[in-house]
Amino acid sequence: MKSITLQPIGTIHTPFKDLEGMPIQPSGAVGVVGRVVVNDDYAEGLNDIDGFSHIILIYQFHHSEGFNLTVKPFLDNHPRGLFATRAPRRPNPIGLSVVALTGRNGNVLHVRGIDVLDGTPLLDIKPFVPAFDAPTVTAVGWLADKAQHTDRVKADDRFKTP
Amino acid sequence: MKSITLQPIGTIHTPFKDLEGMPIQPSGAVGVVGRVVVNDDYAEGLNDIDGFSHIILIYQFHHSEGFNLTVKPFLDNHPRGLFATRAPRRPNPIGLSVVALTGRNGNVLHVRGIDVLDGTPLLDIKPFVPAFDAPTVTAVGWLADKAQHTDRVKADDRFKTP
Repeated sequence: MKSITLQPIGTIHTPFKDLEGMPIQPSGAVGVVGRVVVNDDYAEGLNDIDGFSHIILIYQFHHSEGFNLTVKPFLDNHPRGLFATRAPRRPNPIGLSVVALTGRNGNVLHVRGIDVLDGTPLLDIKPFVPAFDAPTVTAVGWLADKAQHTDRVKADDRFKTP
Repeated sequence: MKSITLQPIGTIHTPFKDLEGMPIQPSGAVGVVGRVVVNDDYAEGLNDIDGFSHIILIYQFHHSEGFNLTVKPFLDNHPRGLFATRAPRRPNPIGLSVVALTGRNGNVLHVRGIDVLDGTPLLDIKPFVPAFDAPTVTAVGWLADKAQHTDRVKADDRFKTP
């Protein structure tokens, strides 16, 4: 299959300079504010976005290289299949976070509940629409009694590039 | 900023051979079944995924080239900023769909509610976890009285590569 080349459209700025101690999901980053700085050339594309309370950020896990197909996630002690986890070291190191949008100034979006490293390359922004993006879920697998623990579990160095 | 090169990890198979007439979101594709075929090399990474009722597919809009920063979305008659829409022609043509997972056979996932073209290159799979991915939304901008109309609005040729 043909490879795909992407060019970042901006940068995400957050208080997190290091993987260790970071929140592991937006739900573990309640109140954390960040700035999404979109390249000036694309500012026009942000029109109308401030009508949405939440947006989807798609970005590069830029400090993650390589991957293992079986990993021990932050929230579990059992090894799990990589694609059943949100671990950052993946064949294509693409991350996604749903964050609250609190304001826009030109090419800058102000967000809250952000769980990514400072300087993260931004690939895309989409409006979060519950009718599209929030189905009625009946099972969350190994996360069943763990997904709510992001408020007390922080990242460690296990997904640092070796 | 440095460009990023991705390699598809598999292919999404659906009944949709052409953009025209396609559902415009998973919510418009209720009951539509598809198959996600992951490269054999990555099958191990699918372990544990069948515990989740829904997964996030990240893929390439492989029939979309170029973009306009202001677009008229399928669900609206007004021009909107591109990043406030889900239009497929974007600076980085990455799509995401949350679909129901109905089963797994080795490297093949059976899904329902799929709204992508047949042959779509797959970039990543993540488990959908409401605690991470479904915040309490208070505003959906221009989609406020339109998001539920995906059951009767279908795609046309407006986002075909010119």
